[in-house]
Amino acid sequence: MRDVLAVGNALVDVVADVDDAWLAANDVMKGVMTLVDEARAEALYARVGPAVEVSGGSAANTAAGLASLGGKAGFVGKVRDDQLGKIFRHDLTAQGVQFNTSAAKTGPATGRCLSVVTPDAQRSMNTFLGACENLTDEDIKDGEISQYRMVYLEGYPFDLPKPREALAKTMTLAKSHGVQVALTLSDSWLIARHTPLFRDYLMMGIDVLFANEQELMTLFPAADVQKAVASARRHARLVVCTQSEKGAIVSAAEETLHSPAERVSHVVDTTGAGDMFAAGFLFGLCQNMPLPKAARVGHLCAGHIIQHHGARPKMALSALLAV
Amino acid sequence: MRDVLAVGNALVDVVADVDDAWLAANDVMKGVMTLVDEARAEALYARVGPAVEVSGGSAANTAAGLASLGGKAGFVGKVRDDQLGKIFRHDLTAQGVQFNTSAAKTGPATGRCLSVVTPDAQRSMNTFLGACENLTDEDIKDGEISQYRMVYLEGYPFDLPKPREALAKTMTLAKSHGVQVALTLSDSWLIARHTPLFRDYLMMGIDVLFANEQELMTLFPAADVQKAVASARRHARLVVCTQSEKGAIVSAAEETLHSPAERVSHVVDTTGAGDMFAAGFLFGLCQNMPLPKAARVGHLCAGHIIQHHGARPKMALSALLAV
Repeated sequence: MRDVLAVGNALVDVVADVDDAWLAANDVMKGVMTLVDEARAEALYARVGPAVEVSGGSAANTAAGLASLGGKAGFVGKVRDDQLGKIFRHDLTAQGVQFNTSAAKTGPATGRCLSVVTPDAQRSMNTFLGACENLTDEDIKDGEISQYRMVYLEGYPFDLPKPREALAKTMTLAKSHGVQVALTLSDSWLIARHTPLFRDYLMMGIDVLFANEQELMTLFPAADVQKAVASARRHARLVVCTQSEKGAIVSAAEETLHSPAERVSHVVDTTGAGDMFAAGFLFGLCQNMPLPKAARVGHLCAGHIIQHHGARPKMALSALLAV
Repeated sequence: MRDVLAVGNALVDVVADVDDAWLAANDVMKGVMTLVDEARAEALYARVGPAVEVSGGSAANTAAGLASLGGKAGFVGKVRDDQLGKIFRHDLTAQGVQFNTSAAKTGPATGRCLSVVTPDAQRSMNTFLGACENLTDEDIKDGEISQYRMVYLEGYPFDLPKPREALAKTMTLAKSHGVQVALTLSDSWLIARHTPLFRDYLMMGIDVLFANEQELMTLFPAADVQKAVASARRHARLVVCTQSEKGAIVSAAEETLHSPAERVSHVVDTTGAGDMFAAGFLFGLCQNMPLPKAARVGHLCAGHIIQHHGARPKMALSALLAV
């Protein structure tokens, strides 16, 4: 039995340092993911300094983190048969993630996310989805999903018609095989764009729901985050609400607990913190760890990733488990 | 008057961590640059873990360093009109380097250097030259060279027939305009492959010769490095022999001095140390600094670059000058 099959957008991150004045001058909203077309992507890229390219994508990062912890992870997502697509495929498979989705032979180039990092370590993402738009339900294979204990869906593909269908098929097939379904809400603006769709998914029943405070309060408007968590719990067996340096709330039928974050002396870049938390937490669940321990593994992984640029692990995360 | 026009191979570095066992298992020679064909490049890439892509190329790194110090730098080198070629062009121009060489529309892809870094911070480079082979003497423009105080040639293009002609034309035009000529020997195995060619260049008269100890002793076999420096001085007005953590020997008609290296507490990756030393030293010369001060700027720049992965500066090097 394999552990987690992640489904999401296949993106290469283009990481550059900027300051707050740059964000203002270029109308980039801080801390969120904004979709951009190719022209805007090129224009923004032309205005940043030297950059570094590193494979990314939210669910793909989580798959990479899981594999780095020693879990059996897979990924489904669409690149093109171009140089960035080859880089994305290499980095994922070299990490030990199974990635069987074929590359598109026509259509837009591999998707890129221009991730600009400000001195406060916040990342603001400008995503040109490119080839991601060509993920279809034909890429979702019954025989692949049935090998896994769990599927993990990111919300970002909701922005694209065909990938949205692919997510729906993943959910349907997973339920038909008794494979658990985990979902991350991904981004508060994304939720605002697709609130009914997110509600539909939750109505079908989610096993594990990941969200940060802002995302959860967008989908479940409430006076405080505890109330939003309680609302979410009506649709999800397990709700995990991450709260940056404050830690995370983990709420299940039997208990609701608060798990403190890992203390980090120097935060460099928060890109991938949520993705790595999910990797550690899901790894813990697959290992049948009790919830507080699974959350602790999540925090350890998130604590590692925010101490360097980029959203993929720079060491075997399994080494964190020995502590 | 502009400062330095650098001519060399246009490469994107693919940086990955490996251990010594990996080098042995894959027949990669430590600490040097080995040329590989596309098949070997692909095979080695398939065997490394997740990597990071960052623009490189020896002379291009020096141009980037010079621009980062506030100098007016240019670069001549050949990429293809592909994704990696666009990344290379962006990173150089975003650093403020003038890069007017057109991209090849046909032929091999943009060159890549798989730079594997061992825990001792040594880098071993496996270069697939790709589009670099299509730099020709038509890319060397009289009107461009005459704008500069100095041209800076790396030795690597000696491995390719057409780029070798391009270097020869650069040297000839520079001399006809009274533009100074700086040359770096680049790599001891390269020198072994092309000893007569390097000797020919030196016979034409070089203004500034850069080499590390091993490179200098390969071209000028001698009992000790001081004797090799003295031999080199017969052909070069100024000889700069870098000696890693021991510093550098700077030898001119009026004086020969030893300049100590910058103390660095934690060396991460020595890639680009020589390139950044050259950037700092040449910047100093262009600013008419006395030789010890120019060498000191070189050491400060090299000390910065070895504290992170990759060969391009991660901050404005001009900030180092304030110290």
